[in-house]
Amino acid sequence: MSKKPLILISNDDGITSKGIRTLVEVMAEIGEVVVVAPDSPQSGMGHAITIGNTLRLDRSNQFGDLGVEAYQCSGTPADCVKLAKHHVLHDRRPDLVVSGINHGSNTSVSVLYSGTMSAAIEAALEGLPAIGFSLCDYSHDADFSHVRHWVKEITLKALANGIPEGITLNVNFPPHKAGEVKGLKVCRQARARWQEEFDQRKDPAGRSYFWLVGSFVNMETGDSSDSDEWAIANGYVSLVPCTFDLTAYKTMQQIQGWGL
Amino acid sequence: MSKKPLILISNDDGITSKGIRTLVEVMAEIGEVVVVAPDSPQSGMGHAITIGNTLRLDRSNQFGDLGVEAYQCSGTPADCVKLAKHHVLHDRRPDLVVSGINHGSNTSVSVLYSGTMSAAIEAALEGLPAIGFSLCDYSHDADFSHVRHWVKEITLKALANGIPEGITLNVNFPPHKAGEVKGLKVCRQARARWQEEFDQRKDPAGRSYFWLVGSFVNMETGDSSDSDEWAIANGYVSLVPCTFDLTAYKTMQQIQGWGL
Repeated sequence: MSKKPLILISNDDGITSKGIRTLVEVMAEIGEVVVVAPDSPQSGMGHAITIGNTLRLDRSNQFGDLGVEAYQCSGTPADCVKLAKHHVLHDRRPDLVVSGINHGSNTSVSVLYSGTMSAAIEAALEGLPAIGFSLCDYSHDADFSHVRHWVKEITLKALANGIPEGITLNVNFPPHKAGEVKGLKVCRQARARWQEEFDQRKDPAGRSYFWLVGSFVNMETGDSSDSDEWAIANGYVSLVPCTFDLTAYKTMQQIQGWGL
Repeated sequence: MSKKPLILISNDDGITSKGIRTLVEVMAEIGEVVVVAPDSPQSGMGHAITIGNTLRLDRSNQFGDLGVEAYQCSGTPADCVKLAKHHVLHDRRPDLVVSGINHGSNTSVSVLYSGTMSAAIEAALEGLPAIGFSLCDYSHDADFSHVRHWVKEITLKALANGIPEGITLNVNFPPHKAGEVKGLKVCRQARARWQEEFDQRKDPAGRSYFWLVGSFVNMETGDSSDSDEWAIANGYVSLVPCTFDLTAYKTMQQIQGWGL
């Protein structure tokens, strides 16, 4: 690449989070960076978009110390990418879209609930190469120091090799406390589910309300060493290439047999 | 099936919409029905869940005339299914979860933005067989009369044959004005995208705000007669079996070759 690549950054924890600052710092070493990120936390927003309400977009000085152009948006992560592509950047096509670094895991089925990954998948839907980065540590002041090297290496490899069209990379890092990273595994999404429970309480007026409380249950049986959950549990970075074509091709013939 | 199947219904247009009433009426002919649906419209919510806020769940008399037990929830479609499974039904396992009938198309990539399909996919994530139904007519008072027969037939076939585990059926119907339905096609998700534009306006205080305005662009080239968009455009019901495993298996080896 003769000139510096243009890199668009978004996330779901909001523009003031530690994770996005880490990502901006690393990307600023690689290319020209533009940030369009939510003005408030958007975790668990899945692939939500704002269609029945208005959107605000304001210039932000959040990364002024790094000389990085930034905007904060009232919408979801997917809204941010749409506004970035069609309004902020309009005639400038980003060479890469990166999202994160999320405070918390987006392995396995969490990819479906993840605002971080929805920003990246939205980019892929728009024909842009994209990567979502997540750290398996939910704390507000999580330690990202051990992942900087990996974020940079993965980004450089993606720029050099090109991410295939329609594919989004879902990258998860073990937490800092897990010790030295052993390496990177290209994985499949593990079979798992969130086992929900609801914490039912009474408000001051005596009316019921609920908090969602989920616990993650790994449903793998047998050898799961090719899964993202295995990689993280064993100290590796997991990288799952994701498609947005949900068609279950292998099931089509079976359902054709129903005689509908 | 010796006793009446237990059918859980949700949607994204909200509990008062015409589409969910149509669905409740048809399902009440087939089984015992419980409704847990949003108390307000949730279109475009994707797979959002409520994790930083509380949820309300109230008994509703919306379908009292049909003798159907119903609840309205302050959350997203995915929240409704979670609350239904883990709180409302707790020890009763539904034989089928159906979502819709959506006022508007959920073909092609719209499946990712769809609240209707997120309720159905959430059910599949929880190990339950599920179908999302959508009518390609966005109007509030859309005519659903031509789809009742198809909704019933598809549901009966799904109950009789069993939907494979982890698969969700995404069913779309042509609008009433398209004339008589020609039949049903088991399809793949069409290659298409939403081409976004933003309508930028000034509020009374002179500050900018935006409305998202998208137009759907079919990106298919060559023969697309196996796609859902083709089916709808040609007067057929489209049925796409969907997976929630986003792994792009065919791309794994290529990325392994990057030497990360």
